Amino acid sequence: MINPLDNIRIVLVGTLYTGNVGSSCRAMANMGIRHLRLAAPNLQNSWDEGERLAVHATDIMNSREEYPSLEEAVKDCVAVVGTTAREGLYRQHSKTPRESAPDLLSLAQTGPVAIVFGREDKGLLNEEIAQCTHLLRIPVSEGYTSINLSQAVLITTYELFTASGTYLPPKEKAPPAPQAQKAQLIKNWSKMLIETGFMKEEQTDHFMQGFQRVFSRGVFSKDDAALMLGVARQVSWAIKNQREI
Amino acid sequence: MINPLDNIRIVLVGTLYTGNVGSSCRAMANMGIRHLRLAAPNLQNSWDEGERLAVHATDIMNSREEYPSLEEAVKDCVAVVGTTAREGLYRQHSKTPRESAPDLLSLAQTGPVAIVFGREDKGLLNEEIAQCTHLLRIPVSEGYTSINLSQAVLITTYELFTASGTYLPPKEKAPPAPQAQKAQLIKNWSKMLIETGFMKEEQTDHFMQGFQRVFSRGVFSKDDAALMLGVARQVSWAIKNQREI
Repeated sequence: MINPLDNIRIVLVGTLYTGNVGSSCRAMANMGIRHLRLAAPNLQNSWDEGERLAVHATDIMNSREEYPSLEEAVKDCVAVVGTTAREGLYRQHSKTPRESAPDLLSLAQTGPVAIVFGREDKGLLNEEIAQCTHLLRIPVSEGYTSINLSQAVLITTYELFTASGTYLPPKEKAPPAPQAQKAQLIKNWSKMLIETGFMKEEQTDHFMQGFQRVFSRGVFSKDDAALMLGVARQVSWAIKNQREI
Repeated sequence: MINPLDNIRIVLVGTLYTGNVGSSCRAMANMGIRHLRLAAPNLQNSWDEGERLAVHATDIMNSREEYPSLEEAVKDCVAVVGTTAREGLYRQHSKTPRESAPDLLSLAQTGPVAIVFGREDKGLLNEEIAQCTHLLRIPVSEGYTSINLSQAVLITTYELFTASGTYLPPKEKAPPAPQAQKAQLIKNWSKMLIETGFMKEEQTDHFMQGFQRVFSRGVFSKDDAALMLGVARQVSWAIKNQREI
């Protein structure tokens, strides 16, 4: 049986300081999670500080994988879980790490699950949030909602670690849709919805977040994604050919 | 009614680095806890690093109280709660922060409760453990049990904060779709999918089972149903009018 923690990928997007990478690696090691990915890192200082703060977790830091974008970093993942500490647009359907941990561990039984953390200064951008199949909101006091990056990593991995003793294996038979297929689905649906006049191109981010929500309820399988891709293909064809029975 | 978080005292014993004090202050602020005490601090560097890492929690750092010993630091407290991440002597009766949080908050309704954190390099000494009325063991992976001081403060205060009920987890705003709306959705989608040529009328039962499955993952809200109904309406319209942008 797979240890679902081995399938968790911690993805740091646009990180500025190596110290936060190092502290995050130590937090990951404390919580039994070992795979780190950096997406479009924007590091402003040398790795010395990262190594100092990683302490005995430098092996995690040194075996990190780097990608030019979030999209590239999560291609193989069956779920892409954005994290935020703030309320905001599109974030009404976020859950807490504690609520979500059992579901995320079930998903991690089926394939890699990305937990995504944004930049120190401005978090995740809206177009990055739009790529996420799930959103977590870390509970913080209204008095001070800005949480340090490695502290956010700690709380999230701590909830996964403590829940990992009690998770229930998934029941779904069809394999979950990988992120690349879901990205294709969102892309093709966007195109189709613009063609039909359902939305204007500039409304894409807004509307597609709604469809992301619909397509991320529970496990969304490969078969589900294939079905919805088929709809988009056929609608696009029918509009061009004005086919009616 | 007293907010029990106002009666929590975070007590750092023999701390070596101001950076850990600053990071702890930020963690405390994130979790709505504001009273810091240093017992026998042994600081090896200037407060510059502490201020840098406290960010907007310097008020907590600057209003800290200092005491020559743990004994002096906890004199007014109704409970003294030692923390550790390791198993060891005297530590068999420790509980997790999550198990203990409700009891500690009840105690904090009656007077100050000290949560005590040891030195970066060797934790709490046995004579300090002996002064504690309660012991918490922070859950960590056996692979790497040494947790950073401010990370230990974060997990402990996070458990108190989430147990205090001052944090309300985000709930789905939109109510779940009633069955009649879902039936309408299936009916309108059937019509649309036949119009586009996606399926033939006699295939309706077969295909609509698949869409039922997609529309029944987790909670499918009224907003979700309204969104998908809007798609069907617009596609039907577009096919009749062969609209393309």
